[in-house]
Amino acid sequence: MEALVFINVDIGTEDSVMEQLSKVPEVSAVFFVYGPYDLIVKLNSDDAEKLRAIIRDKIRKIPGVRSTTTLIVAKTLQRAGPPY
Amino acid sequence: MEALVFINVDIGTEDSVMEQLSKVPEVSAVFFVYGPYDLIVKLNSDDAEKLRAIIRDKIRKIPGVRSTTTLIVAKTLQRAGPPY
Amino acid sequence: MEALVFINVDIGTEDSVMEQLSKVPEVSAVFFVYGPYDLIVKLNSDDAEKLRAIIRDKIRKIPGVRSTTTLIVAKTLQRAGPPY
Amino acid sequence: MEALVFINVDIGTEDSVMEQLSKVPEVSAVFFVYGPYDLIVKLNSDDAEKLRAIIRDKIRKIPGVRSTTTLIVAKTLQRAGPPY
Amino acid sequence: MEALVFINVDIGTEDSVMEQLSKVPEVSAVFFVYGPYDLIVKLNSDDAEKLRAIIRDKIRKIPGVRSTTTLIVAKTLQRAGPPY
Amino acid sequence: MEALVFINVDIGTEDSVMEQLSKVPEVSAVFFVYGPYDLIVKLNSDDAEKLRAIIRDKIRKIPGVRSTTTLIVAKTLQRAGPPY
Amino acid sequence: MEALVFINVDIGTEDSVMEQLSKVPEVSAVFFVYGPYDLIVKLNSDDAEKLRAIIRDKIRKIPGVRSTTTLIVAKTLQRAGPPY
Amino acid sequence: MEALVFINVDIGTEDSVMEQLSKVPEVSAVFFVYGPYDLIVKLNSDDAEKLRAIIRDKIRKIPGVRSTTTLIVAKTLQRAGPPY
Repeated sequence: MEALVFINVDIGTEDSVMEQLSKVPEVSAVFFVYGPYDLIVKLNSDDAEKLRAIIRDKIRKIPGVRSTTTLIVAKTLQRAGPPY
Repeated sequence: MEALVFINVDIGTEDSVMEQLSKVPEVSAVFFVYGPYDLIVKLNSDDAEKLRAIIRDKIRKIPGVRSTTTLIVAKTLQRAGPPY
Repeated sequence: MEALVFINVDIGTEDSVMEQLSKVPEVSAVFFVYGPYDLIVKLNSDDAEKLRAIIRDKIRKIPGVRSTTTLIVAKTLQRAGPPY
Repeated sequence: MEALVFINVDIGTEDSVMEQLSKVPEVSAVFFVYGPYDLIVKLNSDDAEKLRAIIRDKIRKIPGVRSTTTLIVAKTLQRAGPPY
Repeated sequence: MEALVFINVDIGTEDSVMEQLSKVPEVSAVFFVYGPYDLIVKLNSDDAEKLRAIIRDKIRKIPGVRSTTTLIVAKTLQRAGPPY
Repeated sequence: MEALVFINVDIGTEDSVMEQLSKVPEVSAVFFVYGPYDLIVKLNSDDAEKLRAIIRDKIRKIPGVRSTTTLIVAKTLQRAGPPY
Repeated sequence: MEALVFINVDIGTEDSVMEQLSKVPEVSAVFFVYGPYDLIVKLNSDDAEKLRAIIRDKIRKIPGVRSTTTLIVAKTLQRAGPPY
Repeated sequence: MEALVFINVDIGTEDSVMEQLSKVPEVSAVFFVYGPYDLIVKLNSDDAEKLRAIIRDKIRKIPGVRSTTTLIVAKTLQRAGPPY
């Protein structure tokens, strides 16, 4: 199961949270974005129950994470070339 | 310049819009998601002016695209392994 | 896979859309609500791919449906008594 | 009077809040969802004044509840089969 | 039952919709506001079912009304002086 | 200058904040609502500068007020009958 | 009275709407932005009633304007140097 | 690179945050607004990386800043006359 997790963080923790997110094995990319969210994470897991545990235990518990909004990815079309 | 573009589409055009988006050279991935948006596109361009032209001429003009919200990516951390 | 689908409808189609939704086999309840959405539907399907097809083909194609926002249900706790 | 209450919770309290909500007599179901809210509760009460008291005293006072958004249900169509 | 109904209207119909709203017997005030909504209406009805009918048949059917968001008023504290 | 102020409050302070708001001379009505806001206040002031001071000093400083969103009222149509 | 008007436009009309906005005498700047809005306009008018007329007759009636959200500016602090 | 930064502040810090923002060299204007945001800042920087540093180190670290939403400006049309 794939998901995109939108994350808002406490002021001043942007880079430290980004660093720790990139070390979570199931995270394949972390984006620092301009807009209503601070960070967006691309996440892969075997099933729904594991996805819930990753978000609850590995992502939401990183110091500085204030809130998360998770969008489940139903289908992906991707260019074969180098990863973006 | 990198961007994530959130797209809402007219009812019934989900798959056709997704197909056409995946053919835009600057698009590296298209996600069909569950949530307040229908599709999310990852986009790479050389600079801000080209990014504006791609969104205006190649993305917003695909039949079925109803509205777009663009988030500029300021920084990316990515796992080297296989593309997600 | 369970989901809650938030639906906004065209003016004047509230009751007809509600009626047709209640006939979709995978729909277990339809709520007419006061708030930023018009209707909320509880949906059950065998897997993610079937869920996507139900939303795309059975829900979004009901005349009058203007937009949908889908929230995947990760876990449910429910009182055993009579259905609410 | 029926209502759907959307709840955001403090990081790490998801499961404990869900557990306590399920023990509130007027709560008929609790959903852990992916999206802009953490939990969604279905609630029944005799009248508007009792509904306000349940939300104020039994739901908003559960440790970990950060904010609530209440949608009043004006009409319900429900499949007779087993509760979802 | 009291409610505040937030209304967005088609471009150019602001004043005509406002005029027609003010003639609906159950409407006690109409505000033209600056913000994410165009008009806000204060509404009184005997019960929930009548409220739903007023919104569906008298408000949403006024030519130019594009969308409505209804907030049920649970309690009102009001200064006795002249109506604002 | 007239305004509608949407207020979110800390959990458990709903009634005390409502009480104190009703004592602010420039407040003509306070509504406890179901929806994305907790309270809505109708406010009258002589001019924009006084409005800003009332919101900053009399409303936002009431213990329990967490955030406010102010919509300026450009025009009001009101039924002459008893105040709602 | 000063205001910032957030504008969403029909697909493909971005540049034409921007051009016409810049010709409205009371408009001092137009920004094409990335985010949940397409254009943001800075507007000056003598009073509230004139502001309402400018928005209704000069801005909302430009072909392609789909919706507007107006934020009244209560106070401005500005660097004296060249206009940005 | 130009940006508009929407800022929400802690209750009671409106004026102090506004004062400090106006002293940031890259800030050309600060608006106190009525609406879903408290302050809006117009910002100029040489490039994307510097923009990120200004927001992270000079804006988000001002005591009282609670959250920021940044919209990148892709194009500006401005009246030559006196700055607004």
